[in-house]
Amino acid sequence: MFSIKSLNQQLKVDIQTTIDNKTKPPGALGLLENCALQLALIQNQKQKQKQSQSQAEANNKLVINEPTMLVFAGDHGIAQHGISIAPSAVTRQMVLNFIAGGAAINCFCRTNEIHFKVIDTGIIEPLTTDEQGRGGVFIEQRLGLGTKDFSIGSAMSPEQVDRGLTLGGKVAEQTIKQGCNLLLLGEMGIGNTSAAAAIFAALTQQTAAQCVGAGTGIDELQLAEKKRLIDLALARDFSNDPKVIMAEFGGFEIVQMVGAILAAAQAGIAVLIDGFIVTSAALLAYRMHPEVREYLLFAHQSNEQAHLAMLSELNAKPLLNLGLRLGEGTGAALALPLLQASVSFYNDMASFSSAGVTV
Amino acid sequence: MFSIKSLNQQLKVDIQTTIDNKTKPPGALGLLENCALQLALIQNQKQKQKQSQSQAEANNKLVINEPTMLVFAGDHGIAQHGISIAPSAVTRQMVLNFIAGGAAINCFCRTNEIHFKVIDTGIIEPLTTDEQGRGGVFIEQRLGLGTKDFSIGSAMSPEQVDRGLTLGGKVAEQTIKQGCNLLLLGEMGIGNTSAAAAIFAALTQQTAAQCVGAGTGIDELQLAEKKRLIDLALARDFSNDPKVIMAEFGGFEIVQMVGAILAAAQAGIAVLIDGFIVTSAALLAYRMHPEVREYLLFAHQSNEQAHLAMLSELNAKPLLNLGLRLGEGTGAALALPLLQASVSFYNDMASFSSAGVTV
Repeated sequence: MFSIKSLNQQLKVDIQTTIDNKTKPPGALGLLENCALQLALIQNQKQKQKQSQSQAEANNKLVINEPTMLVFAGDHGIAQHGISIAPSAVTRQMVLNFIAGGAAINCFCRTNEIHFKVIDTGIIEPLTTDEQGRGGVFIEQRLGLGTKDFSIGSAMSPEQVDRGLTLGGKVAEQTIKQGCNLLLLGEMGIGNTSAAAAIFAALTQQTAAQCVGAGTGIDELQLAEKKRLIDLALARDFSNDPKVIMAEFGGFEIVQMVGAILAAAQAGIAVLIDGFIVTSAALLAYRMHPEVREYLLFAHQSNEQAHLAMLSELNAKPLLNLGLRLGEGTGAALALPLLQASVSFYNDMASFSSAGVTV
Repeated sequence: MFSIKSLNQQLKVDIQTTIDNKTKPPGALGLLENCALQLALIQNQKQKQKQSQSQAEANNKLVINEPTMLVFAGDHGIAQHGISIAPSAVTRQMVLNFIAGGAAINCFCRTNEIHFKVIDTGIIEPLTTDEQGRGGVFIEQRLGLGTKDFSIGSAMSPEQVDRGLTLGGKVAEQTIKQGCNLLLLGEMGIGNTSAAAAIFAALTQQTAAQCVGAGTGIDELQLAEKKRLIDLALARDFSNDPKVIMAEFGGFEIVQMVGAILAAAQAGIAVLIDGFIVTSAALLAYRMHPEVREYLLFAHQSNEQAHLAMLSELNAKPLLNLGLRLGEGTGAALALPLLQASVSFYNDMASFSSAGVTV
């Protein structure tokens, strides 16, 4: 369905030399140097594909064009058990808030000049034409009226999974056609930390207790019930195939994010991963196509208990750790300036020789 | 010399209510909520002073105006022992690099739209008029030709300390007059992690071993010598007075940063503190005027071993931890977008009632 090329690691030495010749001690820019190296590998690869150049790629300037945040929204049957701080109705209310520009993610996208789109992948009650507005911000590609309650059976059908992957890929491809070469992902869906925790547990053969956290802030009783329901689901008999796991646990927004991640990597562009739920989509994509990992940058470590373990599974060192537990893509939007700074030092910082610095 | 007002904490409840009414779970924006609260306290205080308003301050919009990075450069006699990765000549070369716009801090200031000034507080060889350029970026307020070697005696005289505090304050005041309401600080000075470590050790009665790190990347032998020299200096008899400690260990750039911090707080504006060396200046300022702490925001935890302990001494939780060990103010420049995001969510995010969200 998706075909992803591994990056040409031969350029690594040249790129690293470019970085090491900048007027700073080797490694002194920490994680920003890793980001510059990875972006240079990704962008040189793409340039090479386009221009069939065979050398001097390491000297090409890096660029971040039309960075775009895609927020995938969907509802979850599991939410009917009251294991979130809010009822499913809030997913829809927040989608309207996104369209109106009043949510945290809107603020951060405005501040950091990130294009913004929200995708209804299957919230319970669709928006009216009137509510969808005319701003071009809203995209409707629904897979159903929320997933089924995964504590008692599969969240969706294999056909819904396939359709979700295709639709998620399509919106990424459209965005890339509009000139975007850095995709940022976010999500909204009451109940989706439950789905993400179950996915993580299933992919890594762990128990709910190892993978479940307090989400945006539930109490002890809710947490116990959340664990119980997830363990119930994990006790079912299913294979380790990522597509099977998506069908088992959902959600519509997670499946579409997996498609978007794979399509972006297929197109040779970088993807900036947000928190716990987006990372679960990244892990699914990685299990389907391990090469995808080379295109992924990780924005932040969220406050959700198991996020660090999930990041470790991807060998990822995130840029930020601000104690966020909001989702929406807020961590990714906040991390973008660090990628822009990485690009900036790689492109514009003087070398020891050009600056006459004698270290 | 400086008079600093404690912030009016009575507004805290109103500001916190504003934050908690935003469309997000309480506390879900983590450290950004702390930043918004602190900036709101600082800016409301200032507004109150100006307009003599007695209420509704908590609803005022926050604003970051003309954020300006002041990079203070100075040389250190202690550097003659070869306990840095580079010789003192590099301080001057880097000042020229700053003026030419080729250093990492220039890149990050450009990317994040931060005004930039570099101040020669006493590098060994002053710049020629020609080298100083005509861009208005360079300010000369020298206290000498580098400090004296503090391993064998005081780095500077009490008069130099007083003059440095005044001059550092002056450049901050001028910058504030130009419309800046957020000061960012950075530094350049071969040998200045030694001075900062000695200051930290002296202020907290610790040994060199507890306060010294590898700076921008020295080897084991250099590190041992660095510790030995600092312990030698710490063995001298001196009081715990911050001004005495500045005279003992320097450096010129640290003293002027202390002046800048105190002047900014006196003027009622926030200061964004960079890494190990700037934090040592913040700690000195704090010991002189504890109220100054309320005006300080902390950009990042650097890779320098003792920085975390120094931050703890100030009860500071920094925004970033990127493994930086460069100085120049790079951490502060990189953290600015997070403050802008804090301002943005405080000003523009919808409330539950305005967005029709029913949590």
